[in-house]
Amino acid sequence: MPRLRLALAQTNPVLGDLRGNSAQVVEAARAASAAGADLLAVGEMALSGYPIEDLASRPSFLRDAHNAVLRLAKELQDAGLGHLPVIVGHPDGPFEPRLLGTSNAPTAIAQNCASVLQGGHVKARYAKHHLPNYSVFDEYRIFIPGDELLVLRIKGVDVAVIVCEDLWRDGGPLGRVLEADAGVLVVINASPFERDKDEVRLPLVTRRATETDTIVAYVNIVGGQDDLVFDGDSVVVDGEGSILARAPQFEEHLLIVDVDAAAATDSDLPDSVARVTLADTPAAPDTTGVDVAVPPDDHEQVWNALVLGLRDYVRKNRFSSVILGLSGGIDSAVCAALAADAIGASNVYGVSMPSRYSSEGSRSDADVLAENIGLQYSVEPIADLVTPIEDQLGLTGVAAENLQARIRGGIILMGLSNMHGHLVLTTGNKTELSVGYSTIYGDSAGGFAPIKDVPKLLVWELARWRNAFAATRDETPPIPVNSIEKPPSAELRPDQTDQDTLPPYEVLDAILDAYVTRALGREDVIALGFDEETVDFVTKLVDHSEWKRRQGAIGPKISGMAFGRDRRLPITYRPTV
Amino acid sequence: MPRLRLALAQTNPVLGDLRGNSAQVVEAARAASAAGADLLAVGEMALSGYPIEDLASRPSFLRDAHNAVLRLAKELQDAGLGHLPVIVGHPDGPFEPRLLGTSNAPTAIAQNCASVLQGGHVKARYAKHHLPNYSVFDEYRIFIPGDELLVLRIKGVDVAVIVCEDLWRDGGPLGRVLEADAGVLVVINASPFERDKDEVRLPLVTRRATETDTIVAYVNIVGGQDDLVFDGDSVVVDGEGSILARAPQFEEHLLIVDVDAAAATDSDLPDSVARVTLADTPAAPDTTGVDVAVPPDDHEQVWNALVLGLRDYVRKNRFSSVILGLSGGIDSAVCAALAADAIGASNVYGVSMPSRYSSEGSRSDADVLAENIGLQYSVEPIADLVTPIEDQLGLTGVAAENLQARIRGGIILMGLSNMHGHLVLTTGNKTELSVGYSTIYGDSAGGFAPIKDVPKLLVWELARWRNAFAATRDETPPIPVNSIEKPPSAELRPDQTDQDTLPPYEVLDAILDAYVTRALGREDVIALGFDEETVDFVTKLVDHSEWKRRQGAIGPKISGMAFGRDRRLPITYRPTV
Repeated sequence: MPRLRLALAQTNPVLGDLRGNSAQVVEAARAASAAGADLLAVGEMALSGYPIEDLASRPSFLRDAHNAVLRLAKELQDAGLGHLPVIVGHPDGPFEPRLLGTSNAPTAIAQNCASVLQGGHVKARYAKHHLPNYSVFDEYRIFIPGDELLVLRIKGVDVAVIVCEDLWRDGGPLGRVLEADAGVLVVINASPFERDKDEVRLPLVTRRATETDTIVAYVNIVGGQDDLVFDGDSVVVDGEGSILARAPQFEEHLLIVDVDAAAATDSDLPDSVARVTLADTPAAPDTTGVDVAVPPDDHEQVWNALVLGLRDYVRKNRFSSVILGLSGGIDSAVCAALAADAIGASNVYGVSMPSRYSSEGSRSDADVLAENIGLQYSVEPIADLVTPIEDQLGLTGVAAENLQARIRGGIILMGLSNMHGHLVLTTGNKTELSVGYSTIYGDSAGGFAPIKDVPKLLVWELARWRNAFAATRDETPPIPVNSIEKPPSAELRPDQTDQDTLPPYEVLDAILDAYVTRALGREDVIALGFDEETVDFVTKLVDHSEWKRRQGAIGPKISGMAFGRDRRLPITYRPTV
Repeated sequence: MPRLRLALAQTNPVLGDLRGNSAQVVEAARAASAAGADLLAVGEMALSGYPIEDLASRPSFLRDAHNAVLRLAKELQDAGLGHLPVIVGHPDGPFEPRLLGTSNAPTAIAQNCASVLQGGHVKARYAKHHLPNYSVFDEYRIFIPGDELLVLRIKGVDVAVIVCEDLWRDGGPLGRVLEADAGVLVVINASPFERDKDEVRLPLVTRRATETDTIVAYVNIVGGQDDLVFDGDSVVVDGEGSILARAPQFEEHLLIVDVDAAAATDSDLPDSVARVTLADTPAAPDTTGVDVAVPPDDHEQVWNALVLGLRDYVRKNRFSSVILGLSGGIDSAVCAALAADAIGASNVYGVSMPSRYSSEGSRSDADVLAENIGLQYSVEPIADLVTPIEDQLGLTGVAAENLQARIRGGIILMGLSNMHGHLVLTTGNKTELSVGYSTIYGDSAGGFAPIKDVPKLLVWELARWRNAFAATRDETPPIPVNSIEKPPSAELRPDQTDQDTLPPYEVLDAILDAYVTRALGREDVIALGFDEETVDFVTKLVDHSEWKRRQGAIGPKISGMAFGRDRRLPITYRPTV
């Protein structure tokens, strides 16, 4: 059996930064070439970042991306790396519009491509067949599907190339991989992290490898892009389902592994398969061991995902520091610890903003947190700012409670952000967000919400995990025990606790899991054994909080293309050509 | 030729309100029956409202909608209207999931249906073939396409039934309409208003009628749903392209018209066409004239769309009053006039919030506006509220300017909203929104933005149009001439005008039209003749304002279903079963 040395580069692209992302590929190619690789693969859309959303309907963006691929081929050649076949993901176009509807409707003009570069040229190109259009994916909206399979002949081995979703669907290009009798299947991916996703993804890769009796080389991008976190976790599995190599999660990595693949035969290929023979690479030196990473446990994975999501949002949007309110409670404590892990404690500004209702315990919990972590820490009492407004407007009850939250989040943190350039973190968790237990333009103000998708019970679990993790490394546990153990309170009126208003978090999180995450209906949730009145209370809160969750005001659309519904753009976007 | 009396009901559904929307259909059937109609058609998703977004993935919602159709058939029968065939649009399901991707991915379980009710039963059902997935539409994400054509035989005429997008696509069910040789084609729609859309929609209907030599009866829903406004404009066109009847825009209406249709033949139908023969309706009395509405001019259409969008957002979300800041400028003046037209001046609360930088002119322009319109008017000076904060935090420059805007929008208007239950309107226009010329949590705070999609130049045009319209009716023109004619200013520092920071609006709006609405790239915009430096300045502002436009903080997603990217829900939603 011929032996191929595969290199999979887990890069962290910045969306829109074609020059910077190309440089990452050149860097990976340099290392892969030095290691004697016969083939380098980088992730789906590694050249543009992912997801590009409706930028795919902008012809100038596609032209830039197209030209960037040509330029990358030349740059590799100029760097003396022209011998190495490089498979790289990128958007391509503009193509003739695929008519989607009315004559004046936007139409797909892009394809989601994998290009093969060698000798200064683009030798072949594959366009993704299966376009996911569920959950976070909108690809049917923006891409034209491909319909040819690409097979590369490299050193006597046939290497088939597909993109991400193509691997998940039965039928389609996979059938042709079988017909083509390829020895290696390269899948380039932009597959976001989800809790427990490794329990789905790796078994799928393994199943595909054994079904087709082919070595599957799965390469994923890494990094945060707005609310998605790509976890890497690239892997190579052989036709018997054994893991030959596996990259670590949440960091850039070059995975190198030798595989013994079935030799190519000269059988006829179906019409829908293009075969491209590449020039041979030089003989390779011996390898020095193979990485077979083992993913850490659930809490560590989630923590790492949150840290990377936060770090990349800050970094890719060119901030260098963050500011957040420290209430003494568990949510802000966990967010501060995440921020310190992400960008270093000296770049994290914590502000305690006590009111007349803040307990002595809360103030000291915030002090202890700041001390534990080594944050930049200040105290801004709010009573003298709140009173004149309360008096002038005659605010009482909930309106007065909201006023306190708005002075803290909307006024103080945003004011300091505008003065000093910090990114404001808002510290609400998924449970609060689901039921609308927060003040709009108050504690919900900010550019990034580190624990937006973390239910309250998991916040506590993560706090305990992070403290225990510190202990194993002889470091100070960051989160004050008192913040973990005291009953949660918004402290907007005397002796308030969350459970004055909300069901116990054990019940609330379980109902939200059923109603929100699993999309069950009212009757189905009740059938799980929850109290009817509580289910109605919670589901009504969820249904009525949609505006709060969005915050941005909607308004009537009168033009062909309006911000909001029909213009979906990345927030983190750094155009370079 | 047999004569049929068609009734098209332009109803205004409330999303999720299955009982209330059913009652609208019964009401329309009562009127149609009294007028001797042989067939009543109401709009696409008239039973549920449109768009239902990811509610389509909730089995309980689909079960409720399915049962609501059965109940509606019974209610019509019980009301003595069982003889009248009623075609009504609704979501149906849950069906076996159509596999869309990974084993744990959400899958489409719904269809977008037209059901035919008669004699207390559902006699037939058609499922939409073509699922739009561009612009504001996400139907490929949530619906399973149908593949059969439905032909109803009514009083010797074959009536084909299709849904919305099916009419726009070449091929598909339209080809089968030709083969089936139907005399009438009923199209039920949920087609949102766009400026100049009547220049596309009516010609399409006319073309389809002449191509198929069939009478086309096009019925559309009406009303505001979040940022969409459905304009009605239902129409009946004969096989020669003549308009037989046309309903007015932006209001509920029952359109009744007699048509002489080709008699049905007993030719064989293709396998993919289902033919259902309905019981005859009683002989009809004579009609008393037919409505052939003529749409008003462009500015009046836009104004009416904005009024209806605002009114329905307020009403359907169960608010009864709105509050907005009156700066003396053109944007807030136009918003106040729109609000008064939408819900009556006595329900509109205008607040003037002068600072030390507010000119005497601005204050008196706000006074005059309030007087002209008859608003609920109050004055809340902000200097004494701003100073303590500015001093404590040491805010200067832009941070101090933003503070003023936040005290006005985030603190005063939101505080009064929380105290008195008014919906806060934010008065920014599309130009400001595009370039981020506003203060987040300040003037951009609020639940609804009446002119969010109106560029600045059009704001002025609409103001002039509304004043002229008042003059033609001997009413006081609402908008102070001075607000229209003075140079626009944010008045956040001495002698500030918008043009200190922004290009002239004539240039700015033209560049935004090219870059935003037409999605041209930088080079393409420059090629239109704009100055390179100005284009770069504007496009950078647009690219960097995406977060401001969204306002709601994003955060890393870690679960299978998170708020934000992969959970798309209506804001206006009133569930009843």
